Amino acid sequence: MSAWTRRHLLGLEELSADEIRHVLDTAASFKEVSTRSIKKVPALRGKVVVNMFVEPSTRTKMSFTLAATRLSADVVDFSPSMSSLSKGETLVDTAKNIEAMGIDFIVIRHPASGAAHLLSKVLKASVINAGDGAHEHPTQGLLDIFTMREVKGRIEGLKVAIVGDLSYSRVARSNIHGLVKLGAEVIVCGPSTLVPGPIKELGVRVSYHIDEIIGEVDVINLLRIQTERQKANLFPSIREYARLFQINEERLKRAKPDVMIMHPGPMNRGVEISPEVADGEKSVILKQVENGLAVRMAVLYLCSGSHEESHADVPHQGR
Amino acid sequence: MSAWTRRHLLGLEELSADEIRHVLDTAASFKEVSTRSIKKVPALRGKVVVNMFVEPSTRTKMSFTLAATRLSADVVDFSPSMSSLSKGETLVDTAKNIEAMGIDFIVIRHPASGAAHLLSKVLKASVINAGDGAHEHPTQGLLDIFTMREVKGRIEGLKVAIVGDLSYSRVARSNIHGLVKLGAEVIVCGPSTLVPGPIKELGVRVSYHIDEIIGEVDVINLLRIQTERQKANLFPSIREYARLFQINEERLKRAKPDVMIMHPGPMNRGVEISPEVADGEKSVILKQVENGLAVRMAVLYLCSGSHEESHADVPHQGR
Amino acid sequence: MSAWTRRHLLGLEELSADEIRHVLDTAASFKEVSTRSIKKVPALRGKVVVNMFVEPSTRTKMSFTLAATRLSADVVDFSPSMSSLSKGETLVDTAKNIEAMGIDFIVIRHPASGAAHLLSKVLKASVINAGDGAHEHPTQGLLDIFTMREVKGRIEGLKVAIVGDLSYSRVARSNIHGLVKLGAEVIVCGPSTLVPGPIKELGVRVSYHIDEIIGEVDVINLLRIQTERQKANLFPSIREYARLFQINEERLKRAKPDVMIMHPGPMNRGVEISPEVADGEKSVILKQVENGLAVRMAVLYLCSGSHEESHADVPHQGR
Repeated sequence: MSAWTRRHLLGLEELSADEIRHVLDTAASFKEVSTRSIKKVPALRGKVVVNMFVEPSTRTKMSFTLAATRLSADVVDFSPSMSSLSKGETLVDTAKNIEAMGIDFIVIRHPASGAAHLLSKVLKASVINAGDGAHEHPTQGLLDIFTMREVKGRIEGLKVAIVGDLSYSRVARSNIHGLVKLGAEVIVCGPSTLVPGPIKELGVRVSYHIDEIIGEVDVINLLRIQTERQKANLFPSIREYARLFQINEERLKRAKPDVMIMHPGPMNRGVEISPEVADGEKSVILKQVENGLAVRMAVLYLCSGSHEESHADVPHQGR
Repeated sequence: MSAWTRRHLLGLEELSADEIRHVLDTAASFKEVSTRSIKKVPALRGKVVVNMFVEPSTRTKMSFTLAATRLSADVVDFSPSMSSLSKGETLVDTAKNIEAMGIDFIVIRHPASGAAHLLSKVLKASVINAGDGAHEHPTQGLLDIFTMREVKGRIEGLKVAIVGDLSYSRVARSNIHGLVKLGAEVIVCGPSTLVPGPIKELGVRVSYHIDEIIGEVDVINLLRIQTERQKANLFPSIREYARLFQINEERLKRAKPDVMIMHPGPMNRGVEISPEVADGEKSVILKQVENGLAVRMAVLYLCSGSHEESHADVPHQGR
Repeated sequence: MSAWTRRHLLGLEELSADEIRHVLDTAASFKEVSTRSIKKVPALRGKVVVNMFVEPSTRTKMSFTLAATRLSADVVDFSPSMSSLSKGETLVDTAKNIEAMGIDFIVIRHPASGAAHLLSKVLKASVINAGDGAHEHPTQGLLDIFTMREVKGRIEGLKVAIVGDLSYSRVARSNIHGLVKLGAEVIVCGPSTLVPGPIKELGVRVSYHIDEIIGEVDVINLLRIQTERQKANLFPSIREYARLFQINEERLKRAKPDVMIMHPGPMNRGVEISPEVADGEKSVILKQVENGLAVRMAVLYLCSGSHEESHADVPHQGR
C-alpha cells in the first residue's frame, strides 16, 4: 500500500508527516544505488525530465540532472535566456509547449512565488518545485531533514536553529514546514530586520541573538547571507553581521558537543560561517549535497507513479 | 523500394510531392512510438546529432533534441556564444571541425539564408535545416502539413490562408512550397507593407484583407508578428494590426465551422490571435508541437539512411 | 602489468616517456571504435564526467563530451556564468560540491595556471586538465604527438617547429614537454617579442625567422595568433606578421616535400596560415581533431582505473 499518490512536489506545507517520512525512506533506499560501481537503475528509462531554471543555479540543477540520470531518464535543459521567454511568451504557454513534446517532468526554478503551483494546475506532466521566489524549496528542505535524521537518528524532539536572513528564505520556509510536522522544535535566529514578524505563525520560536540559543540546539542550519541586501540597509555591515552571527570556533565552544552545522550553499566563508567550521568535523555540508541526490531520485521516482505500476525497479523491495 | 535517398533536409522547395508524402507517412509511424510507456526505439543508437543553433530557439531545438533522444541517438549542443564563432572562425571551418569528431548530423539554425545549403556542400554528415534566415524552415513546414493532413484527412484541394508578416517568413515559404506541391490552394494575407510582391511567383493568391477570405478557407496558419518591426514603420501599430488581422471569436463567426487555427509559436496573445481562440477548440497549436517531434524523428531517421540498410528498426514495417 | 597508475592528467611535464607512449597506444586502440557502425563501448557506463569550462571553448569541450559519450559515460555540463562562481564561492568549494554529487571526473578549463593541480589535491574524483592559463593543455599536446607519430611513424629524431606566439601558449608548452621526452628536436619560432627567453630551458632551439628553419623541419605546428594582442604592441601588424611568418604555398616551396602542417584551431585564415595551405594536402588539421577524440577516450579510460580492474572493455587486448 503506497503512502504517496502525488504527481507534483510543490512544497512541504501541503505534505503530511507520513508523506515526508515516505520520501525520506525512499531516499534512503536510493542512497545505496550511489555506492554501486554502476550507479544506475532503469526505473525511469524512456522518461524525459526538463530542467526549467529561470533563475541561475549550480548545484540544484546539477543535482536534479544527476538524480534523473541515475534513474536512466533523459534530461533536457531549458535555458530561458536562449528561449522564447525573452520573446514575451507567457510561462504557461512555454510550459504547455514543452509538455506537448511528450515530456514527463518539469523541474522549475522561478523568481516568482507560486510559479510551480501555477504550472501544476495546467499541466499533465509532473511539476517539481526547485525553488519559487521566497516561497518554498522543498527538495532542499527534504535533504536537510534527511541529513538530520541520518546523523541524529530522529527528528522528533530535535531542537533546530535556522540562522540568517529569514525574510526571503524559501530554504527556511521548507525546513520549518517539514521539521514542525515531524515534531522538531525550530528556533529562527537573525537580526530583527531580517526576521519577519509573521514567521511565528509557522510554529517557530524567534531569537535575535545566536549566543542566547547556541547552547541548547542540536542542529544549526545556516542561511546564505545575500551580501547585495546590505545596500538596502537591512543590516549594518558584513563585518557587523559576522561579529554577531557568524558560526566560528570561538562561538561553537558554547554549543553542544555533538551539534550539527548545516548550510545549503553556496557559502560566504568568513561571513555566516568561518572557514574552520565549514571544513570542520561538525559540518555536514558536503553530506547534505550527497543526500540531495538521493532525495531528488526519490522525489522523481515517487512522482512518476512508477512505484504504483510495478515494483521491479524499486531498489529495496523489503521496505 | 525506398522513396527517400537524400542525406540532407534543406528545404521543401527541392522535394518532390512523393518525398514529402514519404516523410509524412514515416512520421505517422513514429507518432505511435510516443504513446509507448518507454518512448524509445534503438534506430539511431551510437549516432551523434549536433544542435548548432546560431540563432536562439526554444521549441525547435528542444524538439530536435527529444526526437534524436527517442531514436536513441546522442545529442550534443553547440552554443555559439561560447564558441570559436566569436573568435572569427568561418562557419565552414567550425562545421568541418565538428564533423571531424565523427558526428552524424548537424541540425543548423542560422540567421543567413543558405547557411544549411553551404554546409551540405562541404560535409559528409547529414545537414538538417532548422531555419535559415528568411529562406526555409522545412521541419516546421512538414509538421504544419502533417497536422493539416491528420485533422482534415487530405491536403489536395484544401484551402489554406497564411496570415501575417510574409516578407521575412521562412515558415511561410516552407508551408507554401509543400502545400502547393501537394495540391492545396494557398492564400497569403497581410498588410500590403508586409506582403512582398514576388511571393505570387510561388503559386499563391494574395489578399490584403482577412475578412475578405476568412469565409472560404479550411485552415488559417498565423505567423508571429515581430513587434520589433513596428519601429521600422512597416505597420501602423500593434493595436491597428490586431484590429485588422487578429483572429478572435468575433472574426471566427464568419469562418467555416470546421476551420483549423494554426500558429508556429511563440504566440503574441492579443496581437495576431486572441487568447480565447488560442485556447479554443479550433486551435491545433499544441498538436502542431506534438507532431513536430514525430516529423523530426522521421527526418533524422530517413536522412541517416538507416531505412536503406535494414528494416529491423522501422516501427511499422507494413507501411 | 599496467604502465599507467595515475588518477589525474594535469600536464605532460610530469609524465614519463613510457606513460606518454601508453596513452598513445591506448588511443590507437580506441581510434578503431570510431570506425564501427555503433561507435560506443561500455567501458565507463554509469560513470559521470563533469565539464567545468570556466573559459569558453568549442572543440575541446565537445571533444571531451563525445569521448565520454563513446565510453558510455554520462556527461554533465557546468556552465560557470550560470553558476555560483558568480556568487563568490571559491573554486575549491564549487568543485567539492560537484564531487559530493558522486561524479567521477572533472574536466576543467580555467584561466588560472595551476587550477587543475589545485583541484587534484583536494578531490577524490579524477581531474583532467583541459587547459589552465598559460601552463599546459595536455590532451592537445598528446593529440598533436599522436598525429605526428601516426603520419611519420615515429617521434624520435623528428624535427618539429612550433611557430607563433610562444609567450602565453599552453599548447606549445605541452607539445614541448611531450616531444622532448620522446626524443624529438623542437624549434620554437616567432617574433622576438612573442618568444620568452626562458623557453630555452625546456630544451628547445629558438629561431626568429621561419625562413631560416623551414627547410629542415618535418613538422610545422602553428599556433593561433591572438589578434587582440596586437593592441598591446607585441607585434607590428597582422599584415606584417603574415608577411614574416605565414605558412603559404610560396613559403612551403622551401620546405621538405613531406612536411606536415598542424594547427590546434581555430585558424585565422590569411594570418598565420593561408587558406590554400589550410585546405591543402600537407595539412593534417582535421586529422588532429579526429585524433583528439581517441586521445581523450584513452585519457578518460586510463584515469578511471578501469584498465586495472578488468580487461573486458579494452578494445584490443592484444596490445
